[in-house]
Amino acid sequence: MMNSLQLANGGALAFADWALAKQSRIQQLLDLTLPSADLAPQTLHSAMRYSALGGGKRVRALLCYAASELCHGDEAMADAAACAVELIHAYSLVHDDMPCMDDDDLRRGKPSCHKQYDDATALLVGDALQSLAFDVLSRPLNAHQATLQVNILQVLARASGSLGMAGGQAIDLAAVGKPLTQAELESMHQLKTGALIQAAVLLGAASGSALELAAVRTFATNIGLAFQVVDDILDVESDTQILGKTAGKDANSNKPTYVTILGLALAKQHAQHLHANAINALSPFGNTALRLKELADFIMQRSF
Amino acid sequence: MMNSLQLANGGALAFADWALAKQSRIQQLLDLTLPSADLAPQTLHSAMRYSALGGGKRVRALLCYAASELCHGDEAMADAAACAVELIHAYSLVHDDMPCMDDDDLRRGKPSCHKQYDDATALLVGDALQSLAFDVLSRPLNAHQATLQVNILQVLARASGSLGMAGGQAIDLAAVGKPLTQAELESMHQLKTGALIQAAVLLGAASGSALELAAVRTFATNIGLAFQVVDDILDVESDTQILGKTAGKDANSNKPTYVTILGLALAKQHAQHLHANAINALSPFGNTALRLKELADFIMQRSF
Repeated sequence: MMNSLQLANGGALAFADWALAKQSRIQQLLDLTLPSADLAPQTLHSAMRYSALGGGKRVRALLCYAASELCHGDEAMADAAACAVELIHAYSLVHDDMPCMDDDDLRRGKPSCHKQYDDATALLVGDALQSLAFDVLSRPLNAHQATLQVNILQVLARASGSLGMAGGQAIDLAAVGKPLTQAELESMHQLKTGALIQAAVLLGAASGSALELAAVRTFATNIGLAFQVVDDILDVESDTQILGKTAGKDANSNKPTYVTILGLALAKQHAQHLHANAINALSPFGNTALRLKELADFIMQRSF
Repeated sequence: MMNSLQLANGGALAFADWALAKQSRIQQLLDLTLPSADLAPQTLHSAMRYSALGGGKRVRALLCYAASELCHGDEAMADAAACAVELIHAYSLVHDDMPCMDDDDLRRGKPSCHKQYDDATALLVGDALQSLAFDVLSRPLNAHQATLQVNILQVLARASGSLGMAGGQAIDLAAVGKPLTQAELESMHQLKTGALIQAAVLLGAASGSALELAAVRTFATNIGLAFQVVDDILDVESDTQILGKTAGKDANSNKPTYVTILGLALAKQHAQHLHANAINALSPFGNTALRLKELADFIMQRSF
């Protein structure tokens, strides 16, 4: 017999099946959204596809879909938002891996974009993926949704810029070799990783009430930081093959991380604490927030 | 006595005075829009301001304002659009000058961004200026203008991406040392320079009728190409001090230009031809298109 509560949560699907379905959906959408590799300029388009379709957990897209389900958002809008967030994330990885930034040769188990192509192409790939994100979000939907669309564009633009992700990168650059307090580290990651994770959730929840938005914002802030703490733990505990990127990189390059500042045990405890805060923020929603809770668990338990 | 036709054209101001007023307005707007250099991350913000406030002719902003006046566009919308186009242009210059691209040390008579700061900062400056452009365009205006805002965002995102400016850059990169026909060169510049020039005009004209839009689109396509032909002529005929960037650079780096393909005399003739097409497209508007015509003349007569 059908359980209406479960249906309200997006159906009776187990989390793994729901996530797989959404991951496959976002892959298809990105495939359709990215210009064909046959279309000129072919190298640029082929490199854009290489960088944006090369896998990944699609955590940001999943958060966006889950928040949209919670707030009964429009499906087409959720698709556009999930695509845009993944495109911004993909562009940031391409630029981060470049020699003048983190100089990383490996990404998702394959040569990073500038290794597979060249530096100039990687620069343009990142630039064009960012433009494409705003392109996707500004394609015509229903006219009565235009105000919502403008709101969403604003959230993503802010989260991507100098007071969001790019700003976090700049602080990160300036921090190499310098001792940071936990508060400074937190504020850096709030921008570098947290801003886009938060945007993913807020984009999905954009059609929700003010009360819903406030709750998912708290959820998003905490889960964004937890995501980064787990990243720092994995950098130490996992190996390159599972991680798909160079393990031990941050510690070796003298970058302050949660593990170098707190130690491994306290870092794990801190991640648990942030996770608990995130779950707690969802308590007003009861079981309708199931997917977001499951995603919070997934972010904690991931091995890459 | 007042002349009502002149007033309809934006008042009785001479072109030079009009342009100066608009240039000063866009400089103030950019100054207010760019985060303060005191705000963290300070280096990033200082470098963004260095790159976006460092002068330039502001041709794109002027085109945007002139098209908006022609179509009786909203002032706040024209301001936002002019800012956004100049921010996209500024980001593209910062990335173009980087060592992995054109490797140019000089821009507007000063050290280019990566020379004044460093490569990593220049990369982030370009990224963050692009985000800021979409941020500016998605700030809340009147709710009934949201559809127009979404249209404008779409035009700018398309003009900036792999099928616009970034795509033109990629084709340019691939063309170094290869013989191009005039048609191939034209199609490259249509993307590399033309797309953003066209966007500047279309953003300004966004509130116009379909007929107006078609005419200004033809104007913009022709004037965008003329702009590039004049650039190629100046690269040969002007010197570094007047140009504010390294003269003779394109010819020396074995890049195909209008001058290398057509020769100097035919290149000048071609520019005149494109200019005539642009002016001709405006004929239905009579004297109400005065500013756009004056801008077309300005683009032809400039010395830098």
